[in-house]
Amino acid sequence: MFHLGLVPGRAWGALLCQLLRPPRTVCVRAVGCHGQVAEAVLTSQLKPHQEKPNFIIKVPKGTRDLSPQQMVVREKILDKIISCFKRHGAKGLDTPAFELKEMLTEKYEENLRLMYDLKDQGGELLSLRYDLTVPFARYLAMNKLKKMKRYQVGKVWRRESPTIAQGRYREFCQCDFDIAGQYDPMIPDAECLKIMCEILSGLQLGDFLIKIIWTLLERALIDRTLGLLTLSSQVNDRRIVDGMYAVCGVPESKFRAICASMDKLDKMSWKDVRHEMVVKKGLAPEVADRIGDYVQCHGGISLVEQMFQDPRLSQSKLAVEGLADLKLLFEYLTLFGIAEKISFDLSLARGLDYYTGVIFEAVLLQLPAQAGDEPLNVGSVAAGGRYDELVSQFDPKGHTVPCVGLSIGVERIFYIVEQKMKTSGEKVRTTETQVFVATAQKNFLQERLKLIAQLWDAGIKAEMLYKNNPKLLTQLHYCENMGIPLVIIIGEQEQNEGVIKLRSVASREEVTVKRENLITEIQKRLSEC
Amino acid sequence: MFHLGLVPGRAWGALLCQLLRPPRTVCVRAVGCHGQVAEAVLTSQLKPHQEKPNFIIKVPKGTRDLSPQQMVVREKILDKIISCFKRHGAKGLDTPAFELKEMLTEKYEENLRLMYDLKDQGGELLSLRYDLTVPFARYLAMNKLKKMKRYQVGKVWRRESPTIAQGRYREFCQCDFDIAGQYDPMIPDAECLKIMCEILSGLQLGDFLIKIIWTLLERALIDRTLGLLTLSSQVNDRRIVDGMYAVCGVPESKFRAICASMDKLDKMSWKDVRHEMVVKKGLAPEVADRIGDYVQCHGGISLVEQMFQDPRLSQSKLAVEGLADLKLLFEYLTLFGIAEKISFDLSLARGLDYYTGVIFEAVLLQLPAQAGDEPLNVGSVAAGGRYDELVSQFDPKGHTVPCVGLSIGVERIFYIVEQKMKTSGEKVRTTETQVFVATAQKNFLQERLKLIAQLWDAGIKAEMLYKNNPKLLTQLHYCENMGIPLVIIIGEQEQNEGVIKLRSVASREEVTVKRENLITEIQKRLSEC
Repeated sequence: MFHLGLVPGRAWGALLCQLLRPPRTVCVRAVGCHGQVAEAVLTSQLKPHQEKPNFIIKVPKGTRDLSPQQMVVREKILDKIISCFKRHGAKGLDTPAFELKEMLTEKYEENLRLMYDLKDQGGELLSLRYDLTVPFARYLAMNKLKKMKRYQVGKVWRRESPTIAQGRYREFCQCDFDIAGQYDPMIPDAECLKIMCEILSGLQLGDFLIKIIWTLLERALIDRTLGLLTLSSQVNDRRIVDGMYAVCGVPESKFRAICASMDKLDKMSWKDVRHEMVVKKGLAPEVADRIGDYVQCHGGISLVEQMFQDPRLSQSKLAVEGLADLKLLFEYLTLFGIAEKISFDLSLARGLDYYTGVIFEAVLLQLPAQAGDEPLNVGSVAAGGRYDELVSQFDPKGHTVPCVGLSIGVERIFYIVEQKMKTSGEKVRTTETQVFVATAQKNFLQERLKLIAQLWDAGIKAEMLYKNNPKLLTQLHYCENMGIPLVIIIGEQEQNEGVIKLRSVASREEVTVKRENLITEIQKRLSEC
Repeated sequence: MFHLGLVPGRAWGALLCQLLRPPRTVCVRAVGCHGQVAEAVLTSQLKPHQEKPNFIIKVPKGTRDLSPQQMVVREKILDKIISCFKRHGAKGLDTPAFELKEMLTEKYEENLRLMYDLKDQGGELLSLRYDLTVPFARYLAMNKLKKMKRYQVGKVWRRESPTIAQGRYREFCQCDFDIAGQYDPMIPDAECLKIMCEILSGLQLGDFLIKIIWTLLERALIDRTLGLLTLSSQVNDRRIVDGMYAVCGVPESKFRAICASMDKLDKMSWKDVRHEMVVKKGLAPEVADRIGDYVQCHGGISLVEQMFQDPRLSQSKLAVEGLADLKLLFEYLTLFGIAEKISFDLSLARGLDYYTGVIFEAVLLQLPAQAGDEPLNVGSVAAGGRYDELVSQFDPKGHTVPCVGLSIGVERIFYIVEQKMKTSGEKVRTTETQVFVATAQKNFLQERLKLIAQLWDAGIKAEMLYKNNPKLLTQLHYCENMGIPLVIIIGEQEQNEGVIKLRSVASREEVTVKRENLITEIQKRLSEC
């Protein structure tokens, strides 16, 4: 909170400034924790003739405070996630909230407009981090690390249109686990999926499914994209179009038009997109259907086997390689006992621009709302994938460090758990206080202060009221409200006899304990509950 | 990490964009983790005739990554601090990294230029939070809370000239504890000082002293400042100057000039400031000396008693009230057993603009460097104070919520602990892995995967190498390097006999364990170490 370097001599100047400041007329709009908006106008009594632009008391759009109740739930969820990351041998890492803008701009392409930039106040141009993956890649390249298994938990910022009701925010927390390094194929990828399963099972959010989105077409394209780095532009264009021809047969002249149609798949059904391709863009129906075949496929390991038989795909060396990897992945997932949680999905879905291989996304199947409640719609709760070329974009020599990782969407999980708790009426304690120091008598503040210091020094979590002469009932009510299990009661009689009364808040039973045995007795009681 | 809403159909468009992007010529300057700067120029082979502005791989000025080693140390320190906050009954709170700019601008006055503003990208004007105190006050006012004991741990940002060598950064972590509410005088204030002592003792940083800076003059001024809210400007000015006269006798005509001199006390000695006041500003030497008396005083409870006798101070009702509070505070500190850690300092020091009463600051006395080492200079390690008027600045009706709180300067503590560890050569484990799954034979990947999944599912922290056929020696070296205590070794023979070998890395002893007893045996071993 406070500025740590207390600056001598600033007092007078600062105060003068304060005194000479113009008076204010303030319009305040208070937004409560549940989003209700109440307006109130405050006009200070002095100098009402001067005006100041109105201001509203609120948090920035798409952000929120976490109340103590929410913090308790949040901490429990984060603890479970971090435990799982540590169970898999991950090291912790922290990176700054903002990066040099130029570190980020090349990585997000389409999402650039969603990045929060800092104002140019002289010096470097900065942007708030958009995820934890690009900073991780930057860290690896900057420190010339060829491998690392790390987790990171932290806030990221995106200027999206927030849908706060469904747990979407502009400021949100991400929990990432990534494996960087050149390893034998699919072993780290399988571990990432195992971690996702462990976390989602552990959080008891109900049944879930992880969709593997193996973008075969895309993979072929990406392999060609990477070719760009070593070949001239003329040759690359040829190769991409070649790739397209080979796999689906889209004519070169229609390529851009068809891309534009494909882009609408997140808003339109495949049927409508196909219609546009064929009727408006003049694509041969059979070519559109070939694309459609891939877009609409999903299934388990049997689908992989089936794809191997696909006469078109088997013509593409890259597709066959991809399918072999996928088969290997399913083999490992079977050994991990999670194959039935994974569905292979041949849609063309893609999130960020840096994926190079398998992409996966976890969705909840059974929503945890009870019968009669409104169904929860929270979208995916975890996602991840392989990004083998991101680190090389930062590395001075372009060295490649293959990476695969996952991200847990804590905000959405948090939203689900919060809804569950609301439904069940479950209450959370917002403090961990074990003992309350009370008195029924006046002028016992000094004795209470001595007692509570003794408890604190023994590591016992203790509270008292900051009143000289509080009422006993007020003190006991406080304990009941806050769920504090034990109360020490001290008065003149106890003081004279060298004892205290120890009371269980739940049972209201009281025992008399010698002052010298107080700490031992409390520790014994606490270890029992 | 990844964008959670995977957007179908984006693939082609995004890739096309990527392909059509101009090629790059990149100059990279890599900054290593210890700040060394190495330069390397990377010019991609393709299209070298097109240029792109050079970029440097680094973190923004005044920020840093925390490596896994640093994260372990950081977490230990934060755990101790948070435990103490919880021991005192505090609830957790989280607020957004940025606030509406107008929420912050009035609170920091002199430090406004140090605030990080976000770029105006349409919508609200935002600034990164400068501390955790103003967001806390905003939270109280916004939710109409009249009392709250909360802690908050989070990053704050200040555009100061960083002195990184001494643990000063532009992005740094603060650990705050605050008590908001109308209570009997000095009880919460005393608890804040108790908490500071508990934390600094608990972290074993060596001897420390907490300076209480009771700005008597300032307090008189502030009391008058607050008067501003109910009285007209003409009357206020009169009252301030009255206050000044009453306490030190500065002539009204010289007030501004003397303030300007006082402001230099952080750069000049009192002797030089006095000289300027008397020689340049024409202040009567005895008036300057009266100011000087207060500036230079410091001591314990006896000084408080002595001040009561001061003929000048006893004329000021406000000063006498302040001294009475201070006496009460020392009484409580004595009951808490920490009075000898507290020194009363009458300098005019002030950090931020929102203090209204006692201000305190903790400094280390014995620096923990070993003989022969360079002394550590880290400045203050904790600070706090009373700010009774901050919440009312946010409240629509101007309701006052008195507050007192403290902030632990984690970065500086972290710097000291890191230096101590460097000196002692202490090593930290960066992972918590308990068991490693190894094999001496080829083609045992499947069996290792099955085994490790079994460990993970039992909650055991386990790792293996992501290789089809790793060498046994490589695997054992990995365990030694990472400090993993146990290794499971599996081979054909063990497989056939339904057993595994369990090896202690430290003693190199091996025992044979039945597969069905594996988990129980490992759990037993782990509970023993």
